[in-house]
Amino acid sequence: MDYQRFFADALATLKAERRYRVFADIERQAGRFPHAVRHTPAGPVPVVIWCSNDYLGMGQHPDVVEAMAQTARRMGAGAGGTRNISGTHHPIVGLEAELADLHRKQAALVFTSGYVSNATGIATIARLLPDCLILSDSLNHASMIEGVRYSGAARAVFRHNDMAHLEDLLRNAGRERPKLIVFESVYSMDGDIAPIGRVCDLAERYGAMTYIDEVHAVGLYGPRGAGVAERDGEMGRIDVIEGTLGKAFGCVGGYIASTEAVVDAVRSHAPGFIFTTTLPPAVAAAATASVRHLKASQAEREAQRRQVARTKAALAAAGLPVLETPTHIVPLMVRDPELVKAASDRLLERHGLYIQPINFPTVPRGTERLRITPTPFHDDALIAGLADALVETWTHLGLPFEPQAAVTAAE
Amino acid sequence: MDYQRFFADALATLKAERRYRVFADIERQAGRFPHAVRHTPAGPVPVVIWCSNDYLGMGQHPDVVEAMAQTARRMGAGAGGTRNISGTHHPIVGLEAELADLHRKQAALVFTSGYVSNATGIATIARLLPDCLILSDSLNHASMIEGVRYSGAARAVFRHNDMAHLEDLLRNAGRERPKLIVFESVYSMDGDIAPIGRVCDLAERYGAMTYIDEVHAVGLYGPRGAGVAERDGEMGRIDVIEGTLGKAFGCVGGYIASTEAVVDAVRSHAPGFIFTTTLPPAVAAAATASVRHLKASQAEREAQRRQVARTKAALAAAGLPVLETPTHIVPLMVRDPELVKAASDRLLERHGLYIQPINFPTVPRGTERLRITPTPFHDDALIAGLADALVETWTHLGLPFEPQAAVTAAE
Ligand SMILES: Cc1ncc(COP(=O)(O)O)c(C=O)c1O
Ligand SMILES: Cc1ncc(COP(=O)(O)O)c(C=O)c1O
Repeated sequence: MDYQRFFADALATLKAERRYRVFADIERQAGRFPHAVRHTPAGPVPVVIWCSNDYLGMGQHPDVVEAMAQTARRMGAGAGGTRNISGTHHPIVGLEAELADLHRKQAALVFTSGYVSNATGIATIARLLPDCLILSDSLNHASMIEGVRYSGAARAVFRHNDMAHLEDLLRNAGRERPKLIVFESVYSMDGDIAPIGRVCDLAERYGAMTYIDEVHAVGLYGPRGAGVAERDGEMGRIDVIEGTLGKAFGCVGGYIASTEAVVDAVRSHAPGFIFTTTLPPAVAAAATASVRHLKASQAEREAQRRQVARTKAALAAAGLPVLETPTHIVPLMVRDPELVKAASDRLLERHGLYIQPINFPTVPRGTERLRITPTPFHDDALIAGLADALVETWTHLGLPFEPQAAVTAAE
Repeated sequence: MDYQRFFADALATLKAERRYRVFADIERQAGRFPHAVRHTPAGPVPVVIWCSNDYLGMGQHPDVVEAMAQTARRMGAGAGGTRNISGTHHPIVGLEAELADLHRKQAALVFTSGYVSNATGIATIARLLPDCLILSDSLNHASMIEGVRYSGAARAVFRHNDMAHLEDLLRNAGRERPKLIVFESVYSMDGDIAPIGRVCDLAERYGAMTYIDEVHAVGLYGPRGAGVAERDGEMGRIDVIEGTLGKAFGCVGGYIASTEAVVDAVRSHAPGFIFTTTLPPAVAAAATASVRHLKASQAEREAQRRQVARTKAALAAAGLPVLETPTHIVPLMVRDPELVKAASDRLLERHGLYIQPINFPTVPRGTERLRITPTPFHDDALIAGLADALVETWTHLGLPFEPQAAVTAAE
């Protein structure tokens, strides 16, 4: 077999299907977010980022940046080992305590990413439980799907947020069989929210464990930024809360929070936790500073909510096809892979606005979109500029101006 | 089912089997490595680390630390997105170019860890190749085993470093079937080395692709620190080289280096690469500084080699059961889970030396050991102190003083 030829052909197919991705080379500048520099073959050009998951701009918060810089100088760059072999450093022990407190759980465990938390966390919990059945929302993130698959456990997929369907599946499984419900709070591409309380009701009625991914909610919802479950008063009813340090907290890393027994079991058995170098002390210190700040401060959450509402209003007023969401995520539907790319390219090249097109496999084919994430730092002038640029782009490309229904389960 | 009771019982079993791990809480201090502080319930105590994978102490190198601190201040803490959605930052683009150059390959791709590089890299390559057969060394690391398993491809395990066995398996598969040989250069627990040239001979003869994990070799071997394949003059014959930024390079993260076509295919298809937040700019900048430094400087590699040789000589002279290795890894065999823990505890409590006991599942049962990793910063006085402390510990616990044969494949 000619391996190089084979891989070259595979790429040609991807290009023919318009699924080949080119990454924008971005240089962020602390203190100037969302303004940044984009590196192009022709040299650096200024850009405004409208698609970051640094939802509150905490990545440039002085407390966070200083914690990172000073800890690097004090403790060095890397951890130097896996958690078991010299890599459990003081800042990560502190971070885990901080996260347990955030979610009012007995314990927390940090992983290299939210992706790894889900992949190895779900797999390990489900593998430990004998004959476990996993009940998985149909729109769960790729990392959760990997965790479900790696567990080797039986799985039943319920229609997105469909509690009647979930109840059917739970009932069929029988009360005694170990069951794990895995779902998200905020679904990041459609920006909709799970009925957490009702999932917990069903879990209690049928004797299931609950595992929630709050990756797009931690830092953002609830009086201390612990997520939608906190906001809804349901946090104590969830067995395992999973989150990331890489989005609203502005750093990198992932975690779970749960009881001592569950956390300790994952700690002891999860290969993705055991066999890998620990996150650096400087990252753990920065994340701790961010979590701590957002536990106490409402300013960032309030400013974000305000600017999100203003963005949604401005785009809707312009007749742009913005999807109605109850969250900070503002999807602008294009529903075509070529056109969404053309729109994104024009926004970037002509208007200096960076909004990455979202296409398959991140969203289903035919639901291609621009996904806009306003932060506290996207001020009213930037919002007005965004609306104008989108109208120009929509007009130039002949895209339809039309209101969109709120997202449905079928999306 | 009572889930909490179940997980508590699972932990009780682990404790009964003496496999429950307690992590040492270590505070490294840049500039003082291997001296550090260990946090205990009774307060902080000084400790000398003898089991770090920061093999050259690069985690405290001023160029590396300053790159991290300054980049955090300039660009903020986190990347703010996945690689495709606003998370491709300028320092990671530079790091990938640096790594491609290090291995003299067309391209490189950075992942959140070496673990993820293997798990998603191997899985993706093998999944793309139709009807691929993976040939996997029996002692491969957990992350490679996960990659093999996740690929869903057929696998044949060859006895550790046994080229006759590998050849049998290759011959049986037939020339036309796509085949991927996955193996390591330095096996980190026994400290032995694969016959890279002979693996490449077989791969060429039978038409297989080669994937090597140089995690415990990059930075350390070869004139530019590209690994054992570089040292042996075989780097150009290997299809995919995988490495970590978390061990000799002193930071965190992992990567593969290969042809444009292979790297681009993994970039486009690997879920563990696509669906996760990018490593922070500050981490990428620190890693770049480290790779660049070790490309040019021989001082760290030479000093490490010298102190490793002196450590081996000192322990052997004291009659301690040190395993003969051709590498920087110095395993001291105890072969009992209780005794290795007792030895480690005594070294820590009485002598202030931190050497984590290595037990199942990291090594097979009955091969429990202390794994010692001398760095350029473990000077002659520290080595003498180590030998004395070990002799005291061995005597106190009644452990045998006896020479060990070099490791065999059966280990
Ligand atoms: C729902 C969800 N879970 C988990 C992750 C992974 O988190 P991380 O970026 O920390 O790996 C993501 C995206 O990255 C996500 O969207
Ligand atoms: C052989 C081998 N490969 C891969 C890894 C994973 O690398 P990382 O620590 O960067 O995740 C390790 C250890 O951590 C290892 O020993």
